[in-house]
Amino acid sequence: MKSFADRLMDAIDRKQNPSCVGLDPRLQQMPAQIRRESVDKYGETFEAVATCFFEFNKAIIDSVKDQVPAVKPQVAFYEAYGAPGMKAFKDTVDYAKKQGLLVIEDAKRGDIGASSEAYSSGHIGKVEFWGRKKECYDVDAITVNPYLGSDGVRPFVEDCIHYGKGVFVLVKTSNPSSGQLQDALSIISHPHLEELQKSVIKGGSKHPGEVGMARSQADGAKIGPNYLRVAHLVREWGVEAIGERGYSSIGAVVGATYPNEARILREVIPASFFLVPGYGAQGGGAGDAMPCFNPDGYGAVVSSSRGVTYAYLAEPYKAMHPETEFDVAAGEAASLMREELIAAMKEENKHPW
Amino acid sequence: MKSFADRLMDAIDRKQNPSCVGLDPRLQQMPAQIRRESVDKYGETFEAVATCFFEFNKAIIDSVKDQVPAVKPQVAFYEAYGAPGMKAFKDTVDYAKKQGLLVIEDAKRGDIGASSEAYSSGHIGKVEFWGRKKECYDVDAITVNPYLGSDGVRPFVEDCIHYGKGVFVLVKTSNPSSGQLQDALSIISHPHLEELQKSVIKGGSKHPGEVGMARSQADGAKIGPNYLRVAHLVREWGVEAIGERGYSSIGAVVGATYPNEARILREVIPASFFLVPGYGAQGGGAGDAMPCFNPDGYGAVVSSSRGVTYAYLAEPYKAMHPETEFDVAAGEAASLMREELIAAMKEENKHPW
Repeated sequence: MKSFADRLMDAIDRKQNPSCVGLDPRLQQMPAQIRRESVDKYGETFEAVATCFFEFNKAIIDSVKDQVPAVKPQVAFYEAYGAPGMKAFKDTVDYAKKQGLLVIEDAKRGDIGASSEAYSSGHIGKVEFWGRKKECYDVDAITVNPYLGSDGVRPFVEDCIHYGKGVFVLVKTSNPSSGQLQDALSIISHPHLEELQKSVIKGGSKHPGEVGMARSQADGAKIGPNYLRVAHLVREWGVEAIGERGYSSIGAVVGATYPNEARILREVIPASFFLVPGYGAQGGGAGDAMPCFNPDGYGAVVSSSRGVTYAYLAEPYKAMHPETEFDVAAGEAASLMREELIAAMKEENKHPW
Repeated sequence: MKSFADRLMDAIDRKQNPSCVGLDPRLQQMPAQIRRESVDKYGETFEAVATCFFEFNKAIIDSVKDQVPAVKPQVAFYEAYGAPGMKAFKDTVDYAKKQGLLVIEDAKRGDIGASSEAYSSGHIGKVEFWGRKKECYDVDAITVNPYLGSDGVRPFVEDCIHYGKGVFVLVKTSNPSSGQLQDALSIISHPHLEELQKSVIKGGSKHPGEVGMARSQADGAKIGPNYLRVAHLVREWGVEAIGERGYSSIGAVVGATYPNEARILREVIPASFFLVPGYGAQGGGAGDAMPCFNPDGYGAVVSSSRGVTYAYLAEPYKAMHPETEFDVAAGEAASLMREELIAAMKEENKHPW
């Protein structure tokens, strides 16, 4: 069975395009025609919302499928509409796969071992099903939150290896406040780490949990941001999942909005693919995404959601297309994104084709 | 409108019980009769699995509803079975609420702002619905992951304030590997923090992202675990959500398996309610949960899942009850848990009734 990393690289080569389109449907931004048709059929119900989402996604998928290797549905937008919403999510996944696209589910799941097992089995693995096993969503890859440590991620890693799937672990996320925890400087190595940790538990200070650092305790201490610590874990988790083309199916989420951090991370986990959100609407440009690529021109898949799917609501597309051509606008925006990335890659000698 | 914290405290007082029962249905552990009836009705389908889950939960809820103030469904187990699974989740939530129970959804959600907004709107707030707003799952409280920082948590906090709901932020989770990131010692305060952070980005070392700490840099440095850093954020987020009885509706998840850490956290965020998993099957006992309570006897709701719902599969209940009395066994296990907690609370003079 081909690994996810190999399948992703092959798809990127086929389309000569290291980007993907986020599918984050919002009711208010659905074109009037799709809204009307859905309500005509189902009334003003959750089912009608779900139908809207699926019809919209189908048109977007048809419009971008020849250009992009993958789509990235953000499950939050579907989940918000209950079981009908999740049906629309499932229908979207199935349709995208049928059109030859890889599906990266943006779910940011992560829990204690037993619950992570349940998540993983439903999304990328197989669930218990009347004495046998059966896939449920069966996406190609999923984003995972590392806050609970190895036993929260392990079930996903195992399903990746077993079923040829992929995981992108949140390392340095694209949002403005990501630094609060991710950038905090922590002790990466220390000759007497255990003693230091014991002194925290023992306490005695006015501020429970805090200890002042003595000069002698600085000797041999190496510090680095928490995202670096998570990157070390990603490297460890990824070792068993290296594909034939040299990349691991255990990847990392690294925002296009943080190129300096990306540069560090690219060096620390060279074999991990980066899923790079934050392009476009969130403020990251093609140049900002470049540090996420390795010198070989691989290693990153850059994602844009609103900037592509809702292109029809903003200039220059709004002036060029009536609302009914929202899909055409999305195709053009996806094409522009590809061109911008390719140009930046050429400029940096990171263009592999 | 009453705050979630007030509603939770009132419910705890009414039942004189600071515990809740986790509803984590697994197909393999469903009693044969429920399995059979579901398959008779729906064949070997996802719908039959969902029916199993709901029927099982209904019986458990009926059996514990007079004793416990709340139930805590873990959404992973429902989500794994697609849209039918989420229907069972919704039905479970509705049924539990109808029986007068509070519902704490264990979902560990958290994303960038726009996606967290979608999650929050679907679970504790209201979604966009054909020009108006409508609730979807409408649980009373939800667990949230802090890895993305404030803008990932903010939408939940706002819905808490607006709709009288609650959030429990993961601070120190109950699982064995929780320490990998949560216990890592980070710099809580430093007179020249910005310079330190710049030197990390500037790099130049053999190990990108790491810097050796100089002796002079130890001067005035306060270090503490990452869970402490998150606790500081929880305190900040919780200030606006203090209820009439003095507790905030922005709570924390603190595992019963880590009493030393709980002791520190109890001092740092005295006004936050702790959701305390890890009791029972995960190894935490009543004594281990005590540091999660404040001297006033409030501030914690202790959760047991497998230990209660699947009591019928383990001794002593297995010998006492046939499989058809799984619900009776659960009721007895829930009752024992309450007695153990009350005894431990009395011993520590933390018994408020």
